Amino acid sequence: MKRTEDFIIEYIGDLFSSPFIGDDCAVIDNRIITKDIFIMGTHFPEELPLYYAGWRSFAGALSDIAAMGGKPEYFFIGIAGESGEVIKELVKGVSELARIYGVELAGGDTVFSMLAVLSFTIVGKAEKPIMRRGARPGDYVYVTGDLGGSRAGLELFLSGERATEKFIKPLPRIKEGIELVEKYNITSMIDISDGLLRDAERISRINGVSINLAGEAIPINQDAMYYCKERGLHPVVFSVNSGEEYELLFTSPDDIKEDYVTRIGEVGEGVGINLDNKPVSPEGFEHFREGK
Amino acid sequence: MKRTEDFIIEYIGDLFSSPFIGDDCAVIDNRIITKDIFIMGTHFPEELPLYYAGWRSFAGALSDIAAMGGKPEYFFIGIAGESGEVIKELVKGVSELARIYGVELAGGDTVFSMLAVLSFTIVGKAEKPIMRRGARPGDYVYVTGDLGGSRAGLELFLSGERATEKFIKPLPRIKEGIELVEKYNITSMIDISDGLLRDAERISRINGVSINLAGEAIPINQDAMYYCKERGLHPVVFSVNSGEEYELLFTSPDDIKEDYVTRIGEVGEGVGINLDNKPVSPEGFEHFREGK
Repeated sequence: MKRTEDFIIEYIGDLFSSPFIGDDCAVIDNRIITKDIFIMGTHFPEELPLYYAGWRSFAGALSDIAAMGGKPEYFFIGIAGESGEVIKELVKGVSELARIYGVELAGGDTVFSMLAVLSFTIVGKAEKPIMRRGARPGDYVYVTGDLGGSRAGLELFLSGERATEKFIKPLPRIKEGIELVEKYNITSMIDISDGLLRDAERISRINGVSINLAGEAIPINQDAMYYCKERGLHPVVFSVNSGEEYELLFTSPDDIKEDYVTRIGEVGEGVGINLDNKPVSPEGFEHFREGK
Repeated sequence: MKRTEDFIIEYIGDLFSSPFIGDDCAVIDNRIITKDIFIMGTHFPEELPLYYAGWRSFAGALSDIAAMGGKPEYFFIGIAGESGEVIKELVKGVSELARIYGVELAGGDTVFSMLAVLSFTIVGKAEKPIMRRGARPGDYVYVTGDLGGSRAGLELFLSGERATEKFIKPLPRIKEGIELVEKYNITSMIDISDGLLRDAERISRINGVSINLAGEAIPINQDAMYYCKERGLHPVVFSVNSGEEYELLFTSPDDIKEDYVTRIGEVGEGVGINLDNKPVSPEGFEHFREGK
């Protein structure tokens, strides 16, 4: 799904020849703006209670603001649903998260559709917006929080078990993004929406650098660890391919010590992602598996 | 559809207690921002070639900028479709219109969905944004262009005949909106997306005024006139209930003379819409019909 998105974004970029395409937000004057669309069946399972669908979707959009080190100020919402009740439930999840983060609704658009769709535009402020471009060889690679919890939660939910908090109520790293930018020299940043490997690949490609990760350093979510152990899955392989984590992946030459940050690798010459010195790709991952 | 939207917008407004809700765009500093979502089957027929679906949808979003007297600068697009080909065709219609109006793409988001969905956020500039609120008794009521062409085009298209230009390739009144605001004292403005009567009702309600229209003054589109004549329909009744016209409905105390503007009535005391001194409502319209 997302691979094709990269292709189409390239196509759209060509068609419009826009310099903006490719970052989490566009920067217009001192404002950062992001737009995101979420569709039932594609971005969240049909069985997920609509309250959580609203929450998760808005969290995903807010996470793009976090990825620039920005503070969300206003948001616009477009909601489609098959009834007023559906729309109301979706809105409830959104409004709770809006209250937590102090984001003000600036406009709304609702339509009826058999398929639930949520679309957000968020306007934020960033004194010094951090882009995906900027990582340099020698920088360290860091990640906030831990990984794998979102995927474990989704799989547990789909199998009828209790989903994890991280899956049903993810909290975007707004506060952390702002703090990191204030305290350290952050050279590039992205939020993990498509999995650590895929998002690291984006940083690698746009900067023409390699991202060299240490498997044992990657912080694994406790629920994911338990889930993998029960099923005989490799927790690192599982977690670096877990999407919609909404953690921040960033690079910095600084030695960062914060309780919510883990150093997981270094930026190097060349292009590509290496895990324990072996090239890996988000799709196949064969080399790593074979080596274990 | 739209009646329920009004209800839900009220509900959303209550939930978030936002002061922004209810206008075509939100005003943030010197920028105006609008967000619109369009769904296949709801906003455009499934049979409509995707190129026109993209064009019409983007025209609808741009029209909200026109309704504030603004100039569109940047836009963000969210597109869902069942294949890359579907998305490309939708994008083509959008990109053509973007070129015509000189609007720059600032961000894109594409996803796969069995249902085609287009969602736009447009950022524009307005030296003096015109709101829906501001009409006063004694003002004149004006409309740009002519009405009925969009509905006639839709009905012709659905019956398998050649659709009108106004239906397949509507042109939002950006240039006209800016010129009107520069030259005249425009007290309130809205674009006609749900039909003259329904949008006039919004102006009436928000300002606590009545809108008094003269049936014979309402400019009827030539295709609509011909369409109504052939089918024995009343062209005025037909045209004041024609949606997605993307013409501007506005009020001003000035005597406006522009070749693209027609004076169609006056603002009065009280609340409601009168057509030739008889109260009318967008739904029923019985009184007017009976009187003819």
